[in-house]
Amino acid sequence: MRVFDMNQRVVKISIVKIGCIGCSPLLEYLLDERADRKDIDVRVFGSGSKLDEERAVDIAKRALEFEPDLVIISTPNAALPGPTKARELIASKGIPTIVIADAPTKKVADKLKEEGFGYIIVEADSMLGARREFLDPVEMAVYNSDLIKVLAVTGAFNIIYEAVDKAIEAIKKGEKPELPTIIVNRKAAAKAAKFNNPYAKAKAMAAFEMSKRVADLTTKACFVLKDWEEYTTLCAAAHELMRHAARLADEAREIEKYGDYLIRRPHYKDGTIMIKSKLIEKPVKMEEVKSEHESK
Amino acid sequence: MRVFDMNQRVVKISIVKIGCIGCSPLLEYLLDERADRKDIDVRVFGSGSKLDEERAVDIAKRALEFEPDLVIISTPNAALPGPTKARELIASKGIPTIVIADAPTKKVADKLKEEGFGYIIVEADSMLGARREFLDPVEMAVYNSDLIKVLAVTGAFNIIYEAVDKAIEAIKKGEKPELPTIIVNRKAAAKAAKFNNPYAKAKAMAAFEMSKRVADLTTKACFVLKDWEEYTTLCAAAHELMRHAARLADEAREIEKYGDYLIRRPHYKDGTIMIKSKLIEKPVKMEEVKSEHESK
Amino acid sequence: MRVFDMNQRVVKISIVKIGCIGCSPLLEYLLDERADRKDIDVRVFGSGSKLDEERAVDIAKRALEFEPDLVIISTPNAALPGPTKARELIASKGIPTIVIADAPTKKVADKLKEEGFGYIIVEADSMLGARREFLDPVEMAVYNSDLIKVLAVTGAFNIIYEAVDKAIEAIKKGEKPELPTIIVNRKAAAKAAKFNNPYAKAKAMAAFEMSKRVADLTTKACFVLKDWEEYTTLCAAAHELMRHAARLADEAREIEKYGDYLIRRPHYKDGTIMIKSKLIEKPVKMEEVKSEHESK
Amino acid sequence: MRVFDMNQRVVKISIVKIGCIGCSPLLEYLLDERADRKDIDVRVFGSGSKLDEERAVDIAKRALEFEPDLVIISTPNAALPGPTKARELIASKGIPTIVIADAPTKKVADKLKEEGFGYIIVEADSMLGARREFLDPVEMAVYNSDLIKVLAVTGAFNIIYEAVDKAIEAIKKGEKPELPTIIVNRKAAAKAAKFNNPYAKAKAMAAFEMSKRVADLTTKACFVLKDWEEYTTLCAAAHELMRHAARLADEAREIEKYGDYLIRRPHYKDGTIMIKSKLIEKPVKMEEVKSEHESK
Amino acid sequence: MRVFDMNQRVVKISIVKIGCIGCSPLLEYLLDERADRKDIDVRVFGSGSKLDEERAVDIAKRALEFEPDLVIISTPNAALPGPTKARELIASKGIPTIVIADAPTKKVADKLKEEGFGYIIVEADSMLGARREFLDPVEMAVYNSDLIKVLAVTGAFNIIYEAVDKAIEAIKKGEKPELPTIIVNRKAAAKAAKFNNPYAKAKAMAAFEMSKRVADLTTKACFVLKDWEEYTTLCAAAHELMRHAARLADEAREIEKYGDYLIRRPHYKDGTIMIKSKLIEKPVKMEEVKSEHESK
Amino acid sequence: MRVFDMNQRVVKISIVKIGCIGCSPLLEYLLDERADRKDIDVRVFGSGSKLDEERAVDIAKRALEFEPDLVIISTPNAALPGPTKARELIASKGIPTIVIADAPTKKVADKLKEEGFGYIIVEADSMLGARREFLDPVEMAVYNSDLIKVLAVTGAFNIIYEAVDKAIEAIKKGEKPELPTIIVNRKAAAKAAKFNNPYAKAKAMAAFEMSKRVADLTTKACFVLKDWEEYTTLCAAAHELMRHAARLADEAREIEKYGDYLIRRPHYKDGTIMIKSKLIEKPVKMEEVKSEHESK
Repeated sequence: MRVFDMNQRVVKISIVKIGCIGCSPLLEYLLDERADRKDIDVRVFGSGSKLDEERAVDIAKRALEFEPDLVIISTPNAALPGPTKARELIASKGIPTIVIADAPTKKVADKLKEEGFGYIIVEADSMLGARREFLDPVEMAVYNSDLIKVLAVTGAFNIIYEAVDKAIEAIKKGEKPELPTIIVNRKAAAKAAKFNNPYAKAKAMAAFEMSKRVADLTTKACFVLKDWEEYTTLCAAAHELMRHAARLADEAREIEKYGDYLIRRPHYKDGTIMIKSKLIEKPVKMEEVKSEHESK
Repeated sequence: MRVFDMNQRVVKISIVKIGCIGCSPLLEYLLDERADRKDIDVRVFGSGSKLDEERAVDIAKRALEFEPDLVIISTPNAALPGPTKARELIASKGIPTIVIADAPTKKVADKLKEEGFGYIIVEADSMLGARREFLDPVEMAVYNSDLIKVLAVTGAFNIIYEAVDKAIEAIKKGEKPELPTIIVNRKAAAKAAKFNNPYAKAKAMAAFEMSKRVADLTTKACFVLKDWEEYTTLCAAAHELMRHAARLADEAREIEKYGDYLIRRPHYKDGTIMIKSKLIEKPVKMEEVKSEHESK
Repeated sequence: MRVFDMNQRVVKISIVKIGCIGCSPLLEYLLDERADRKDIDVRVFGSGSKLDEERAVDIAKRALEFEPDLVIISTPNAALPGPTKARELIASKGIPTIVIADAPTKKVADKLKEEGFGYIIVEADSMLGARREFLDPVEMAVYNSDLIKVLAVTGAFNIIYEAVDKAIEAIKKGEKPELPTIIVNRKAAAKAAKFNNPYAKAKAMAAFEMSKRVADLTTKACFVLKDWEEYTTLCAAAHELMRHAARLADEAREIEKYGDYLIRRPHYKDGTIMIKSKLIEKPVKMEEVKSEHESK
Repeated sequence: MRVFDMNQRVVKISIVKIGCIGCSPLLEYLLDERADRKDIDVRVFGSGSKLDEERAVDIAKRALEFEPDLVIISTPNAALPGPTKARELIASKGIPTIVIADAPTKKVADKLKEEGFGYIIVEADSMLGARREFLDPVEMAVYNSDLIKVLAVTGAFNIIYEAVDKAIEAIKKGEKPELPTIIVNRKAAAKAAKFNNPYAKAKAMAAFEMSKRVADLTTKACFVLKDWEEYTTLCAAAHELMRHAARLADEAREIEKYGDYLIRRPHYKDGTIMIKSKLIEKPVKMEEVKSEHESK
Repeated sequence: MRVFDMNQRVVKISIVKIGCIGCSPLLEYLLDERADRKDIDVRVFGSGSKLDEERAVDIAKRALEFEPDLVIISTPNAALPGPTKARELIASKGIPTIVIADAPTKKVADKLKEEGFGYIIVEADSMLGARREFLDPVEMAVYNSDLIKVLAVTGAFNIIYEAVDKAIEAIKKGEKPELPTIIVNRKAAAKAAKFNNPYAKAKAMAAFEMSKRVADLTTKACFVLKDWEEYTTLCAAAHELMRHAARLADEAREIEKYGDYLIRRPHYKDGTIMIKSKLIEKPVKMEEVKSEHESK
Repeated sequence: MRVFDMNQRVVKISIVKIGCIGCSPLLEYLLDERADRKDIDVRVFGSGSKLDEERAVDIAKRALEFEPDLVIISTPNAALPGPTKARELIASKGIPTIVIADAPTKKVADKLKEEGFGYIIVEADSMLGARREFLDPVEMAVYNSDLIKVLAVTGAFNIIYEAVDKAIEAIKKGEKPELPTIIVNRKAAAKAAKFNNPYAKAKAMAAFEMSKRVADLTTKACFVLKDWEEYTTLCAAAHELMRHAARLADEAREIEKYGDYLIRRPHYKDGTIMIKSKLIEKPVKMEEVKSEHESK
């Protein structure tokens, strides 16, 4: 294992959280899960649950004050005025910016790309059932717990941190990072999760699909239906759907444990990603695994 | 229902996240779960997963720049230098500050109180198994998913947002808030969760206990054991324990659904907390429920 | 209870099964679940799994030979040539005909109505993953087992037998039956299932949604994807989705048992539908329950 | 793979369903699960839930009108007058006939054999709890869903379609088919299911046993007990037993998925049975597998 | 509540355990579950797992040395020489004796009664799969764990301790006890368990039936089959059946918890049985409940 | 396999059960699970649920009358007067004695060792919630069922019977046995259980931990809390914790079945321990397995 270079450049990252999607709450921790990474310095700036223009711009400004090398914006529906203004402000400073967002963002994906933004749009990251008759803080937390389980197990989080790490790596080398433009769908996610058992993969894909379909229900419940009894029931149905998506994701993960081939890909302290499969084995750097394969 | 006063004071809140505990990721959303609350303005400042002095102080400074009426600091082990310096800095400005932290913070609880801080110390908010052989970003997310489920269902989150809301309410009235000094143990949490079914309550208490005991294992795995095979297995055992705590919490919540008496306490847009019990019924303001009881 | 009239007219029903949908296998038994009904005489004519024109017409002819008062055709995609020819043949004899079909039939629903057919289109009745690399007879049976559970619990079967019973009742009275034109969606099904517990209803609606979404995956797997590894995995994902829909439906039904208010609506031997709620109570005729309500 | 002979003889099969057993609803689909088989032409004739002599003979006559090469009769208790008359009529035409029936048929098994009938008697195919206080159409469907799951997973369906296929194959060759005379008990079923994991096999056998024992309860509830509260409770117990048999069967099947060695045996379009074990692998014809083994 | 009479007679009880059935391991604790009962003095004498004549007689002699007022013998198959000799020895001393045994004892039930023995024969108390290729100490313990769960929840233990308590009560009053002659079947057990929810009762009856059927498999595996692969698999199937019986019993008990009407009947320190239904309520003496009912 | 020596010495064992711990109910059967062992002769002497001095000494005296070569005492808290007097009496006769006890015994562990006793102290063997408002005979049995499952699966019982067998073996050789002095903690138990899958091991360790923590709750509920509503709820929480520990243990065991590498270690009739891994394979003597390994 090569010696860790203490003099390597530290990449400064501002994470801007506008409102909340399932990818937001743990975003900064995905990059440095054990707080031992030496190559990045992270600051988070959030507007709470609101995503109006004023607040979005305000935290974008604060994020810029950190003089970041890279900005990550996580937001629902990046086409809304708040997120749009925020990222335009950051773009005006020429800082590489990756937008992490949910499915409604797909309609501006091409525009984002044209404007030089990276994006990771996660189809399964559905909005919750935001009706006062249904959603209280505890229900919100329960929902996010389930959604996080789905996103983690089905591979969405793998795509996020690997894409961000790639950009970080480029910046560390002094290069201009090639930013990701990824739609995280069922297939992409499952591939990234690297399941060994094909039924685990199929279950994870089903869980992803379920999670994605939650938005069909919540969108209707929040924006279409007027009858409060009807939308309350539909909100409840949506959250039950997410609860079972989480269960199915859990089932997929258990299969991998049962066969003792659950892939783990921790960060090394220099930021490179390692990999291991059996629980009782040491991780090795992924690049070494690859070069080993290539040399065969 | 009284008319909403658009002229009421908006309370500015800075949330400072130093490192990560289970109470951190959704903290800001607990205060305004549907983004429709008019009486608060929230900004979040985070240091990512690291909690060293330099970063802690840096985000504390940024938090002060927002000129908040109230600061909430969430951190593991508030006795460490980073969190300590951060809160001292904020205290020096005379801003009411509530520290949300995990069990190791109990040893400085009295000191915090003396120094005028509020605190909410959540016993069940156990650290994860932070060993490179075990913990990768996905495992971290899975763990937090389970932990959040436990904290949400067993009542810990109820205590947090009700205590913070109380402080907000005081500030809105121009009063100096009486800050909470709460150890969230099994009993306090279960009481706050307001279970109707006594077996649901018992199950939730068992889940809380399990979650709390995770720290016994992870502390040993992370700080005591040297043999990597041993600590890797113990990390895995700890996360299995949390996984089952989440299941048991879920079981408790299901009981309340089965009887259709799951309590929901959403925020009204003026920040007051409402309450309801049957799924198909409208929430009413808790203060009205209370005064109704009193007038009897 | 009024005396059973042995002289009442016996309605002759031909059930024509062209290919297979989830509503087909138990269709005749839904009408007379304990084989003690005196008012109908049923014959079933099936073409096996194939639904080509020749076979469809052949069984339609055989069905007519029974000289039925009512014909029920169950088929996937009623717009296909086979089912179309079959029902045109029957229609040419002027016999009231109800088509029971799956979602793709929606595109000809208006046409069916115009031509005088009744229809019951069940959105959740999704096709299976019919790829040779995946589907063998056992997998087919397992899938149908799950699908039947979903259709039974979520209310789809209630709609079917109540609609058919209504037509039978009219014929018994010598009237021309008003044929049903029903799209069985999430909401209609849940209403028909008459859940007492609102969470049971929400779970059933989520199960219905899951079952409906299976077709998104199987359609893609069977008709769009060319890569066999890819479509095999997607077929597997689709069946896992159905398996969990069945589980969720089962969960909904269990809630009703836990509260001892699971509605049962057995046929009386004269064909009228009875109703009961507690397990240990006698069913009464629904019409009596209604008139009791009205007289209040 | 040998070229498919388009000129091969197409075997005409009449399936006669008298009343309902668990093997009936999907019988025709077991023979051609993806509707792509070229070597058979199937017609189904059913009497609904009733199995009296008049109706049984009526559908037998209709079945003969198709001029079948092979007749399959599925019926509860083949010793009853209806099924008996029906098969005697068919036998009088000299057409090879296989009776598929439930355990009570065992008492006439020898007689069936003597008279030249084939039979497949499935011990686990228990009757449901046919009491008006308990059984409505939905409960009937739920029960059949569970029963089908058990029969599919434990191997009963494998025995059925392999035995029928064997008869078809003989007829295709112009030979007189040797008809099956099989009692499908726990052991025979488990062998046919070809489990790889011995615990999966043991669980499937336990599920088969549970399913078989349901009849002990339902027979008592339907024909012995007079007290309605008592027989209603016993019907409910019987269906709970079947529900758990289905769960245990599901558990057995999951084990095979967890190890990725679930055997699948789809039909090829020429009617031969193929086999595969890993999800992501192509099926091969069973005869080829066998000859490969033999040549070693 | 009447004052406890410290001078009341203490009944001396010898419990003789010959070999092992599911009723044996916890038998003495069923009589005094919290060790606070003042009216009995218990000694246990066991022969380990063996039940030959020599050992059975030996422990019977030791049991007599305690000069008991009442003897309880628990044994498999009380018709075997060991148990027979043991009880004859005790009977020769004229001490009231209750035999607790499993289903094979039914064949000598009448004889037992004639000879003045009481008996409680528990149909669900099935023998385990005692084959060396399958049964090791851990599997034995796992099986007994499941069996105990079934016997406890389905009502068998209620019958045992209530019957023994009745005999004790008689002896305390100086009367000759009327000894129980009970076959604990599905119905008797379910009645004794006093379920509130009828589905819980049905599930418990199904669990009882499953547990009873285990003996069909183990008897065949232990005494009939010669092929070791076959009997090993059948032993495994039998234990899976018991495992699921325990699960179903657990499900029944959970229903009662979900409704908060799980009946508890603890002993008071004077040996009388109390009763309560809601978790948070004080138990009252059953006799008081009854007299209250009578006085109405 | 060497010939069984019928002339070998038979070791006489008295098992003294004072009160009840989870290790007690099946203790004698752990030594001879199929009643076919020729080298030991066991007698059990129990005091029922009480463990006062008088009764403890009484059964110790009876145990000595058997003239045992080895005495095993199982008891809660061996430091109490009853168990202490009992073992002192036995020790005064110079008979090798092994104490099996629960965690509170740890405080006298050194003393026991000094005085020449062997001990096996099982940390997970927690006391139950012995409050009259909660604990009735059925709840007691349900708890023990769960506790036995945990102790069996996690490895505690393996340690017990292997340690006792070792002492027996020494006595058979005419040697003075070296008595065990073992604290059965999480790690020791998991090692003894010999899990093949590391996640199964981790789950078992988590289950052990849960079971151990039950005592924290029950001790508080039984000896500290005075408010009856509070201690009743805490008793219920403790038993829920044990119920889930049993579930998690079951999950661990299932993993081993799913991989078909569940270790079984039955006794041979000469008392030696055999071992096997696949369900369908013959066990071999462990010593042979070891010598085979050594010779490699």
